[in-house]
Amino acid sequence: MYAIGIDIGGMSIKAGLVKDGKMVDCNRKTTAPTSDLAIEGIVEQINELLVKNSLSIKDIRGIGLGAPGLVSSESGVVEYCPNINWNKVPVVDILRKKFDTEIKLSNDANVAALGEARFGAGAKFNSSIMLTLGTGVGSGIIIDGKLFEGGESKGSELGHMVIKVGGEKCGCGRRGCLESYASATALIRITKNAMSEDEKSAMWQFVGGDIDKVDGRTAFECAKSGDGTANKVVDEYVSYLAEGIMNLANIFRPETFILGGGVSAQGKYLTDKLKAYCEKYEYGYKYAPKSDIVTATLGNDAGIIGAAALVL
Amino acid sequence: MYAIGIDIGGMSIKAGLVKDGKMVDCNRKTTAPTSDLAIEGIVEQINELLVKNSLSIKDIRGIGLGAPGLVSSESGVVEYCPNINWNKVPVVDILRKKFDTEIKLSNDANVAALGEARFGAGAKFNSSIMLTLGTGVGSGIIIDGKLFEGGESKGSELGHMVIKVGGEKCGCGRRGCLESYASATALIRITKNAMSEDEKSAMWQFVGGDIDKVDGRTAFECAKSGDGTANKVVDEYVSYLAEGIMNLANIFRPETFILGGGVSAQGKYLTDKLKAYCEKYEYGYKYAPKSDIVTATLGNDAGIIGAAALVL
Repeated sequence: MYAIGIDIGGMSIKAGLVKDGKMVDCNRKTTAPTSDLAIEGIVEQINELLVKNSLSIKDIRGIGLGAPGLVSSESGVVEYCPNINWNKVPVVDILRKKFDTEIKLSNDANVAALGEARFGAGAKFNSSIMLTLGTGVGSGIIIDGKLFEGGESKGSELGHMVIKVGGEKCGCGRRGCLESYASATALIRITKNAMSEDEKSAMWQFVGGDIDKVDGRTAFECAKSGDGTANKVVDEYVSYLAEGIMNLANIFRPETFILGGGVSAQGKYLTDKLKAYCEKYEYGYKYAPKSDIVTATLGNDAGIIGAAALVL
Repeated sequence: MYAIGIDIGGMSIKAGLVKDGKMVDCNRKTTAPTSDLAIEGIVEQINELLVKNSLSIKDIRGIGLGAPGLVSSESGVVEYCPNINWNKVPVVDILRKKFDTEIKLSNDANVAALGEARFGAGAKFNSSIMLTLGTGVGSGIIIDGKLFEGGESKGSELGHMVIKVGGEKCGCGRRGCLESYASATALIRITKNAMSEDEKSAMWQFVGGDIDKVDGRTAFECAKSGDGTANKVVDEYVSYLAEGIMNLANIFRPETFILGGGVSAQGKYLTDKLKAYCEKYEYGYKYAPKSDIVTATLGNDAGIIGAAALVL
């Protein structure tokens, strides 16, 4: 059975036709400046997918949408999303008037987690927690195969769990959030600080002497080549992320954690280090039901496939 | 309808007859040294309650048990509980052979949370998180009126969420757990440290000059009388507990937090301070669905009433 997934982003809106958990066709539009225009565009994108694939709306199980920001999945309203300029937009109701099918909405991080859980790295697990290690730390929680979004579907903000009271300032206003230590942004900060204190580190060469060229790969790649300072950066980063993972293991005991986002490209090199760190602790990990730690597999398609999974 | 709740503790085992969420009769036995003897005692306690109240097992909706330590509620087995010397005890199966009624088991902290949620401070809320501020920090999570225990019913260990990486050593082996900052034990440590640094604090008078007499009330009572150092201790304690509460609000967005255990006896004085701290933060609390913070009302009966609630 087909479903359509819509991935609403700050730069573009992607619409995909999904069958058996795989994307079989997709199109993309630059995000329009107002919600009215953007939704008009989404209607066109959906119709285009249907026509191009010789399908009618009756061949579609439903339409799922993932949107950034504060979203009420129960009422189908995008409450507040400054980076696409949407404010209290009842997108589900609006689309229902155009398409006679099931339509569902959720937060983009939750949707990506659902996609990975159903059709990606989490497919063989019944419960999982996805952490997306990018500019921030996004997250989604799957319990018994279903999204857990918290009260009024506004929870599941695992990146804003403080792991170091009084620590680094976070964009959310608190100090010491997991996001301030485990995002790619945080990794870059830790890397730059370490480089400033060691002018002989191989990381300087890696970025051609230009500290502004440091990214989430710098420390990892130089650590693999044996640079001591880079290894310290990686160990520090791993320790923070692992502490966050153990916190969540103690709360949820999911069968697996799934890492997505830029930093997760380190794959097994990263997950092996995380597991080794966690194994040191008996209570939180070793003698409790063990949670695996794996890397996401759907990549950029997670948003579309996950949105479609809302109605699959 | 009646139900029987069994509260298994390190010192004593209490059995109570519960009707309409209230305890109408109870008895107590010193905890026997082996699980066989203890379960024999529980059978006697149950029969005693039935006979004394002229009831047969058919008048009883079921029997619920709350046990400390590692418990598998799905299989009805107390896996590991060193302080009562139980190890892989299938207590539910054993009792089923004696009583033809529904029998359920859960962890004691979860059971207390369920009791408060159904018949105590959480009765008007659909979701709640209970934190028991005693020797450690116990916890229970109620989502949509039901206990959420995590994978293999071994999660919900909110006291072992690290809020300060590299901080105080916790009994679980990690450093910086909420329990190491928000338990009564932690409050006593913070109080003693502050007293050591201020020999003029009124807290010295409060404990008759004997620092070993410091307890969870010392700082709170002296803060109320205006002692500056005591106020600092209370503010520090409140900040740690509030950071933990905001973390959990960001994850679960429960309708309310319920505080139990010794420190919660401070009632509104404590909850007002916690709310004032949380209100300072927009993201975690102010602009998100608001979670109330209230004090538990069932006191020592929460264990029995909560155990009975497992079958009600």
